[in-house]
Amino acid sequence: MTRIGRRARRSELFIGVDIGGTKVLAAEVAPGGEVARTARRTTPGRRVDVALVEDALTEAVMEVADGRPIGGVGLAAAGFVDAQGERVMFAPHLPWRGDPTRSRLESRWGTRVVLDNDANCAARAELALGAARGTNHALLVTMGTGIGGAVVLGGTLLRGRNGMAGEFGHMQVVPDGLPCECGGTGCWEQYSSGNALVRYVRARIDAAEAVTTMLEEMCGGDPSKLTGPMITQAAEAGDRLSLAAFAAIGEWLGVGLANLVAAFDPETLVVGGGVSAAGDLLLGPAREALAESLVGSAHRQIPPIRQAAFGPEAGVVGAAAMARSGS
Amino acid sequence: MTRIGRRARRSELFIGVDIGGTKVLAAEVAPGGEVARTARRTTPGRRVDVALVEDALTEAVMEVADGRPIGGVGLAAAGFVDAQGERVMFAPHLPWRGDPTRSRLESRWGTRVVLDNDANCAARAELALGAARGTNHALLVTMGTGIGGAVVLGGTLLRGRNGMAGEFGHMQVVPDGLPCECGGTGCWEQYSSGNALVRYVRARIDAAEAVTTMLEEMCGGDPSKLTGPMITQAAEAGDRLSLAAFAAIGEWLGVGLANLVAAFDPETLVVGGGVSAAGDLLLGPAREALAESLVGSAHRQIPPIRQAAFGPEAGVVGAAAMARSGS
Repeated sequence: MTRIGRRARRSELFIGVDIGGTKVLAAEVAPGGEVARTARRTTPGRRVDVALVEDALTEAVMEVADGRPIGGVGLAAAGFVDAQGERVMFAPHLPWRGDPTRSRLESRWGTRVVLDNDANCAARAELALGAARGTNHALLVTMGTGIGGAVVLGGTLLRGRNGMAGEFGHMQVVPDGLPCECGGTGCWEQYSSGNALVRYVRARIDAAEAVTTMLEEMCGGDPSKLTGPMITQAAEAGDRLSLAAFAAIGEWLGVGLANLVAAFDPETLVVGGGVSAAGDLLLGPAREALAESLVGSAHRQIPPIRQAAFGPEAGVVGAAAMARSGS
Repeated sequence: MTRIGRRARRSELFIGVDIGGTKVLAAEVAPGGEVARTARRTTPGRRVDVALVEDALTEAVMEVADGRPIGGVGLAAAGFVDAQGERVMFAPHLPWRGDPTRSRLESRWGTRVVLDNDANCAARAELALGAARGTNHALLVTMGTGIGGAVVLGGTLLRGRNGMAGEFGHMQVVPDGLPCECGGTGCWEQYSSGNALVRYVRARIDAAEAVTTMLEEMCGGDPSKLTGPMITQAAEAGDRLSLAAFAAIGEWLGVGLANLVAAFDPETLVVGGGVSAAGDLLLGPAREALAESLVGSAHRQIPPIRQAAFGPEAGVVGAAAMARSGS
């Protein structure tokens, strides 16, 4: 059949790239979702020239390809992608503002490029191969620098009128609350995200409320050098301040999920992204807060909160799968 | 054809009944949505015996029927209705807690009874005959004593796993905020609803911050006798305190809608229920707050906020239409 010629060969190289507010991760992904070679770069920032961001993406992709021909690249971006998958319309943590990113990178790399929101890409991975497999109606929350989200209804992604459905991180949970990069205040992701985790710990250290030898050693005595992964590692080792930080952002996670469940009444909740690597340290407090905050919780089935199967690699796995399938 | 025998004859009497936290409205509704004879009762309360509520419904239905045979009754209830449409599982303002309401009323009235959430019924009316006609993806918010909601996706109602999708009124907007009848705190409907409107005005009068001759006259000098319709009437006549009350609940309406638009990215927003009778006094401040609060508002199409076509009668119109169509 002639159609076979258009299909991806299993031996072809497909690369997924995930760009968040902090880092760029590029990966060679096998058809079953296995991640082979990876490359990382630091995200240049949100006030820089767009070209710097595209340079970082290019470096990461070329490092993974290492001279081999590329079958296609899927790009997962932490921002609003238009319904056509051509442009990042707006990204609180990145400089893109409607630039024709997809076609520009396609020309630059000489291979097919497909683009979607990072949370949608993570959802594609979880839906096809992970924690949302077989569900009809699920919400996916991606906790990285901020919060991304995706809505699965009838087994497919809800895009919305502007392609912007699932922007859960910018739902306001505190009136006149903490300022957000999006220009708003009190956004959910200011209280439950990687940034919120680090802010919690730094504030306690700055206020001299807490001194923790483990964290001090990790950051060389400079709290401004603390990162989310350091706090996760410390929490796993039993560090009290780090555990309290996860309890705080986990409780906010549950409160926000209760709001989403009130609106969508889904079968399943899936939490992914870098912060979800902490597993039950994060999800335990979230489950408690969900049961406590959810309206009518005694009279309904409360959806389970599952940890994403792909953890922080869901974005690249879903992006590569999208490139492989061509849409 | 034998199927014709099961269809409603146009001359048959179909009654819609809407029970909210404050009142029961029953109405004879024509196939085109025109409301003919109506009857009203006061809702007996949420701490009373269930039988008292069913008595009030029966009185209202029998007054409308006035001895004529009934083709069917549709019941719109301000509570969580199970996915089968048999029971009100939980209702913050009503005493039902999983009682088999549909079958019990069907036996009592000797005619077919169908049951759905009040906001879903209002949505059915707006979808079939009103402000949401022809839309594929809309959110409907019903402002009465509290806030109800409905989600239209692909032109049909999203029910959710428990039949509880669209419970927007109990999304938390203020941490540790005002206590809600649902058992939670800081629920959206505590800040934007008929109850919130009256509370705003009473608090200003109690604090002696405002004395308004018009409102004083309306309530006979007793602020505890103030109602939402009185405040609407006063606002329409230019009363400053009443206008400020609508500005306050309208701003909260817009903030909550911004949260929903971030999650759903719908084409259209429709606001109905008794409070929506105030029209632009409510929707003007809501439109401003939506544009200001919505994430990425400069980079997307902001959905219009439309006033429901059926106003406070949407519930009975949709309920009767549901009874007529048999589902």
